[in-house]
Amino acid sequence: MAHRPIILGIVGDSAAGKTTLTKGIAQVLGEQDVTIICTDDYHKYDRAERAENGITALHPDCNYVDIMEDHLAMLRSGRPILKPIYNHHHGTLDRPEYIMPKKYVIVEGLLGYSTLAARDCFDVKVYLAPPESLRTEWKVKRDTRKRGYTEEQVMAEMQKREPDSEQFIRPQRQWSDIIVSFYPPSDAPNENDVQLNVRLVLRPTISHPDMTKIVDSGSEGNHPVRLELQRDMGKPVDVLEVDGHATSQNVTDIEHTLCNDVPDLFPFCSTNGNPDIGKLVGTTGELLQSYPLAITQLLIAYHVLKAAKIHQH
Amino acid sequence: MAHRPIILGIVGDSAAGKTTLTKGIAQVLGEQDVTIICTDDYHKYDRAERAENGITALHPDCNYVDIMEDHLAMLRSGRPILKPIYNHHHGTLDRPEYIMPKKYVIVEGLLGYSTLAARDCFDVKVYLAPPESLRTEWKVKRDTRKRGYTEEQVMAEMQKREPDSEQFIRPQRQWSDIIVSFYPPSDAPNENDVQLNVRLVLRPTISHPDMTKIVDSGSEGNHPVRLELQRDMGKPVDVLEVDGHATSQNVTDIEHTLCNDVPDLFPFCSTNGNPDIGKLVGTTGELLQSYPLAITQLLIAYHVLKAAKIHQH
Repeated sequence: MAHRPIILGIVGDSAAGKTTLTKGIAQVLGEQDVTIICTDDYHKYDRAERAENGITALHPDCNYVDIMEDHLAMLRSGRPILKPIYNHHHGTLDRPEYIMPKKYVIVEGLLGYSTLAARDCFDVKVYLAPPESLRTEWKVKRDTRKRGYTEEQVMAEMQKREPDSEQFIRPQRQWSDIIVSFYPPSDAPNENDVQLNVRLVLRPTISHPDMTKIVDSGSEGNHPVRLELQRDMGKPVDVLEVDGHATSQNVTDIEHTLCNDVPDLFPFCSTNGNPDIGKLVGTTGELLQSYPLAITQLLIAYHVLKAAKIHQH
Repeated sequence: MAHRPIILGIVGDSAAGKTTLTKGIAQVLGEQDVTIICTDDYHKYDRAERAENGITALHPDCNYVDIMEDHLAMLRSGRPILKPIYNHHHGTLDRPEYIMPKKYVIVEGLLGYSTLAARDCFDVKVYLAPPESLRTEWKVKRDTRKRGYTEEQVMAEMQKREPDSEQFIRPQRQWSDIIVSFYPPSDAPNENDVQLNVRLVLRPTISHPDMTKIVDSGSEGNHPVRLELQRDMGKPVDVLEVDGHATSQNVTDIEHTLCNDVPDLFPFCSTNGNPDIGKLVGTTGELLQSYPLAITQLLIAYHVLKAAKIHQH
């Protein structure tokens, strides 16, 4: 192997869009080179035991966080792990699985940034933070369609989990390099076919491409691509906004900047005519395709490929 | 924890007496301070898959040796592991188990010394090498009484495994610090209640107590406790023989030497009136009690306790 595996984290609350975004980034990086790990597999208790103990899957005490840390460190150094398996379908803990990390490892889950030792293993840390109203909509849709719950059950479960979400999940935002929030435009009806905007918080903990050159900073308040200097959790960040109604013309410059820096990305540039970038099948089967999604995938893939270049030896 | 865990290996072929000796040594060390790991848990395939693939459990390719290496290294540094579980009763691979190592870890199994990385994790390496005739007797007894096989099935299985025993199991003798061979006296009928002799090969890879002072080296060929300089696999070793008919008087000096060096052992000195030392319940329920067994347990426990002393910090 030319370089150690590069570890990308996709962390966020239940139904925040982790699996969908993970699949999209794996497409850009090349699925044959990507190992996907879900940290839900590190649950200590199966579904029946959690119900019995009155503990939610979001609580660190419900997860082998120490084992997760060790496994992340092993993967980062290119060593195989015997990963436990949490079977979402049956809610059981099954026979573990041997995993030899490929070139890129995407680690998605609830608690990936919850400890220092775990955080230290990631090259790029993404946190998904859709507005709670949108996350609720996504969770109801998924859990009723794919996991056999009623809407009332899902809502009750979310309410039960809220204290743990607040205490353990949302604070992880502070440790991320990129915070991704898809959200519906304020003037749009809350429908399935609405084109979501994306708000990307770019924390200067990793070196983002210089967007000031390409985005007309703040000059036009209603331009579909905007960059603004802000504070996030009290710390300076850049915020890149891409509206759902942005056009190919609007995003061309950003895409080309990313792709010129990392030529491997060029084929995935949507403005290069690639029909698949920014096109994703959601976990409940709906087709998503948008420029905001394309820019999000490209920017994350950009950081993964840059990290790989740095660690080549 | 005052010191890192001390790792003792008990390696040998199937039915060589690993589990029984492991239990006996855990008694001497204090069961509350001992974690027992069986490397059979690192089988890659369940029983049905092994039959299908025509591979025996003795073959390294049938085991996650790399994962075993990593787990041994973790235990040695006092870190927990999520150990896979091979269910001997059902022949299945089950939900893994969280193990935080205690003061002493005894690792028993077939392939513990098969790689350099694994061997490097052990503080004391014991290899069990009963004569094949005795091992066959033990295996037939155990597998017919406890695992539901017929004698013919057990014999056929042993024959099928013999090439792998020769190629992968027996060569591990060379890496051990102590080779333990219980064997029936040549003049004894091959019966269950016969008092077995023990032959302990002491390889100078660890510092054994100076036996020359206490054992009348070679002067009396028929003394029930004898020490002899020999070669084992071409290399110089001491061989300590303790006959089954040795008396308390015969073993007193050896026991006191071990116990004076490591005072924690003193309560377990059989000549000190301890009724449990050298008394073991075999895996098929028979009671074993003898001075050869007592000396073997004490000598191994002696090395574990000495290693703990050295690594105290």
